[in-house]
Amino acid sequence: MTVGARDGAPRQRRDARRNRELLLEAAHEVFTEKGLDAPLDVIARRAGVGNATLYRHFPTRAALVDAVFRDSLTGTMDAGERARKAPDAWAGLTAYLEVVFRTLAADRGSNDLMTTHLRGVESLEAVHGHNRRTVDALLSRLRDEGTVRADVTTEDVLFGLAALGRAVPALTAATAAPDTTAPDTTAPDTTATDTTATGSVPDAWRRPLALFLAGLRTAPAAGPLPAPALTAAELAEVLRELGPHRTRAGDREPGT
Amino acid sequence: MTVGARDGAPRQRRDARRNRELLLEAAHEVFTEKGLDAPLDVIARRAGVGNATLYRHFPTRAALVDAVFRDSLTGTMDAGERARKAPDAWAGLTAYLEVVFRTLAADRGSNDLMTTHLRGVESLEAVHGHNRRTVDALLSRLRDEGTVRADVTTEDVLFGLAALGRAVPALTAATAAPDTTAPDTTAPDTTATDTTATGSVPDAWRRPLALFLAGLRTAPAAGPLPAPALTAAELAEVLRELGPHRTRAGDREPGT
Repeated sequence: MTVGARDGAPRQRRDARRNRELLLEAAHEVFTEKGLDAPLDVIARRAGVGNATLYRHFPTRAALVDAVFRDSLTGTMDAGERARKAPDAWAGLTAYLEVVFRTLAADRGSNDLMTTHLRGVESLEAVHGHNRRTVDALLSRLRDEGTVRADVTTEDVLFGLAALGRAVPALTAATAAPDTTAPDTTAPDTTATDTTATGSVPDAWRRPLALFLAGLRTAPAAGPLPAPALTAAELAEVLRELGPHRTRAGDREPGT
Repeated sequence: MTVGARDGAPRQRRDARRNRELLLEAAHEVFTEKGLDAPLDVIARRAGVGNATLYRHFPTRAALVDAVFRDSLTGTMDAGERARKAPDAWAGLTAYLEVVFRTLAADRGSNDLMTTHLRGVESLEAVHGHNRRTVDALLSRLRDEGTVRADVTTEDVLFGLAALGRAVPALTAATAAPDTTAPDTTAPDTTATDTTATGSVPDAWRRPLALFLAGLRTAPAAGPLPAPALTAAELAEVLRELGPHRTRAGDREPGT
């Protein structure tokens, strides 16, 4: 017994580490495909471990979400820091929101993360707080300049971004349809200095984001809208992708 | 046998008519609570009939949706007709969209109906087509006036309205919280002539709708934003209400 424990402990630690990695990998895949309320047993199954092992490593969904997304969230906080110091406040706000939207366009898990409030996810609460302070600071600079409507609040901006952000996966799905001939939409460029790129990267969210920001201004911005307009067929596809509202997790009827 | 058939046929017709009414009533309730992809067997159960009876009356979900919502949809088409003829095109567009938003704020079923494309629902296709032609006609008048950005398309407007419209149930739920003291939010006034009402009816969607329309203009509209701004607590509640993205019906894992 004592001999077995002496040999077994390091192996158990190794196994535990390996299971944790398998779980994080599987959780990343499943959250990405299905959003943050994907069934946890699907994640355990994909990782090849039992539910008990999952719960031992991650006692709550929040702990698992936190572990999966913590690193990617710090990127948007860095972008927020840069934006607050940008010489031109509108350019700062636009560049920051482009980083945010590029992240939330990446997959449904990140989209859930950025557009909803999940209780108890530590890194997420930090990001939401940071995001709010960034928008607050930039709006205050714009108000001092007199270039943003005086009656626009931080909540107006955050609500508009959430509403628009929620539709981004449908928009991305509809505009990245097989007939699109863009070469590479997954280029890992997150520096976001070019705010008017069109065509080669079909970031269709740039256009409604620009329209939303335009509505906040006291005078129109110069220049045309970025990104090509949706075709009627693409819009129809977006509306299909939006799909019916799902019942909320807590509402589900037993046995359906 | 012959005698039974003679007496039975009218009774069967009466029963069929009654079952149809029970089904329409149950479907209206269930769609309203849960959205348009609510399980059909829940509807049959609530109506107190078997699944076979449901399918005999409504062979497809589309047929049932059509029967439930046909009447309420004609209201928005009437509003569209009025709006196209309004002397002031912006006032016409605003009044029309207020009728549309009041309808889609009413319940999740109507929201699904107005913001997504469901194939095969006849009355709905008529409404989507009519809505498109209304927006088209008003944009064209505004373009002639030079009061709307020249590069804004009908698809820009319809996408923005869909994105905003999808967030309306969360907005309504968050702002109609128990601490709200508004007397009556269900007043059946759909004439929508007053476009700046605030306070007494907390139609919180008026404010983001006004901001969205402002973004389309070549010069800012006069007057303050309608409806009070969200508080930080209300915004947090909206973001919780938005909830994680659901997997789409076709994606569901077997056994989860």
